Amino acid sequence: MLHRSLGPGGEFDRIRQIAAALGSSAEGLGEDCAIIPDGPGHLVASIDAAVEGVHFRREWLAPEEIGWRACAGALSDLAAAGATPVGVLAALVVPPGAPGEETERLMRGIGDAAEAAGAPVRGGDLTRGPMRAACVSVFGRSERVPGRGGARPGDALWVSGTLGGARAALVRWERGEQPDTTARQAFARPEPRIAAGRWLAANGATAMLDLSDGLAGDVRHLAAASAVGVTVDLASLPLHPAVAGAARLAGEPPPVFAARGGEDYELLAALPRAFDEAAAAACRAATGVSLTRVGSFEASQGVRLVLAGMEVTVRGFDHFA
Amino acid sequence: MLHRSLGPGGEFDRIRQIAAALGSSAEGLGEDCAIIPDGPGHLVASIDAAVEGVHFRREWLAPEEIGWRACAGALSDLAAAGATPVGVLAALVVPPGAPGEETERLMRGIGDAAEAAGAPVRGGDLTRGPMRAACVSVFGRSERVPGRGGARPGDALWVSGTLGGARAALVRWERGEQPDTTARQAFARPEPRIAAGRWLAANGATAMLDLSDGLAGDVRHLAAASAVGVTVDLASLPLHPAVAGAARLAGEPPPVFAARGGEDYELLAALPRAFDEAAAAACRAATGVSLTRVGSFEASQGVRLVLAGMEVTVRGFDHFA
Repeated sequence: MLHRSLGPGGEFDRIRQIAAALGSSAEGLGEDCAIIPDGPGHLVASIDAAVEGVHFRREWLAPEEIGWRACAGALSDLAAAGATPVGVLAALVVPPGAPGEETERLMRGIGDAAEAAGAPVRGGDLTRGPMRAACVSVFGRSERVPGRGGARPGDALWVSGTLGGARAALVRWERGEQPDTTARQAFARPEPRIAAGRWLAANGATAMLDLSDGLAGDVRHLAAASAVGVTVDLASLPLHPAVAGAARLAGEPPPVFAARGGEDYELLAALPRAFDEAAAAACRAATGVSLTRVGSFEASQGVRLVLAGMEVTVRGFDHFA
Repeated sequence: MLHRSLGPGGEFDRIRQIAAALGSSAEGLGEDCAIIPDGPGHLVASIDAAVEGVHFRREWLAPEEIGWRACAGALSDLAAAGATPVGVLAALVVPPGAPGEETERLMRGIGDAAEAAGAPVRGGDLTRGPMRAACVSVFGRSERVPGRGGARPGDALWVSGTLGGARAALVRWERGEQPDTTARQAFARPEPRIAAGRWLAANGATAMLDLSDGLAGDVRHLAAASAVGVTVDLASLPLHPAVAGAARLAGEPPPVFAARGGEDYELLAALPRAFDEAAAAACRAATGVSLTRVGSFEASQGVRLVLAGMEVTVRGFDHFA
């Protein structure tokens, strides 16, 4: 049962309990995606719910951006499975008094993110409710799903893009300020790394996930599922340009700020030792996405986050903490 | 664009607006399922959201029943597509203070409905929110999807099982009474007609949908999508045993009460004229589900609901009325 390989944390405790309640019908809980063998490859599917006041605030984002984020978050799971999206389903909950125009704009944002990933919106459900929520389900096909459990001692840990941009925007909004354009973009219109995910799956990734709760938390899932240890060199994290200022406001060293930042939707992958800077450059040439080596896997269990030679404790984000 | 074939009503006006906003990325909106050609058959998928206070009340249903209904509603869309379910994804929204045991029971209900349909729960998402909601996405495979648009003049209209049971339970609860066991069962644990849906798709159904908003409303979708008219003989509707008493309380003739009753999750199918009682008996023998002939399709547009020789007006259920 793959759910046994979840890292620690209140949300994961709950998922474990739920998986136990489901018994044998809970195959694959704890992976980013449902993975079903299909012909020579796999059918993969994922679901994500975005709830007003929890995942978004209307004061911060336009309806199109709320829709985009909800859809991009689910598509990002497909990216981590090395998949090509095939379709998107969206269920919207809106209060009876909400203007129809707002609902259309929300749906347009979902449609734009789906179209950018090459997957049309195939259907949906619209219902009234006490608050706004968007639930997006995506499905696609993958020739090879790296999964979370394949990292081996000696593999290196790589991350795509830059980290901390979405959290930098949040920190500004929470202080009543406006984030700068690039940080706002990182939060409001994250790019699911579909092409990079496919490329990494085809080029030897032994394990892969997408960063939804922050590298500090998510790397634990790779280590736990793979039954290996990992050391992350925080100084090597690729920081979003907005991190420097926001980390100062938060009173955290910039790499710690970035490692705690959720919802970057970058890919975190284990790659064989032989994967080098030339290979990373090839990925960038093929997909437009940069890769940075940020750590290495070891036989000894545990996750070590190291900054300036010292091990530091970094909490990830937990919905049920 | 299939969404043009939706019947009238506030919810459908909204879906049409949303489809217009999505433009070309909205393929198939308005069908019960997303339908994607896949090998010799089709991949089909659907999504349903169930929101506390809108689709269920905790005073009325146990958590397992709330979960079962949410999952059964989505599986019923697969039944209407003649599909074999392959997997279920569930996203739960629960308030931070909700007991973990309640969440597990909700999830167990989803798992039970999924297992009864032969499709394991393949993954999910758990998030906090201001109220409870369950969003269930299902996917499966179908060799032949009848769709909504294939009914021809001369075809007959058939319905599975009995109608009005779920509404009979609702009427009792709304009066502060307890529904009888069979009505409660109809509401709390509806059976998605998976086997019957497959059988009907393989045995000539020219159009099919599942009854979520009541026959009076849903039959309009078949007629509109097929560009034909239909006459429904309300006196021939197969009534749930609890309808007689509940219809009296509601002050409606029993067949009108049943035709307005949403969430029966029975199948409504157009079948060729040659489909007869012997064929219906064969369906029952193969699937355990009874079929009743309740009307006929005609070239002249429009939906006529006839009771005792008189045309009557019956409203369906509309989330945005």
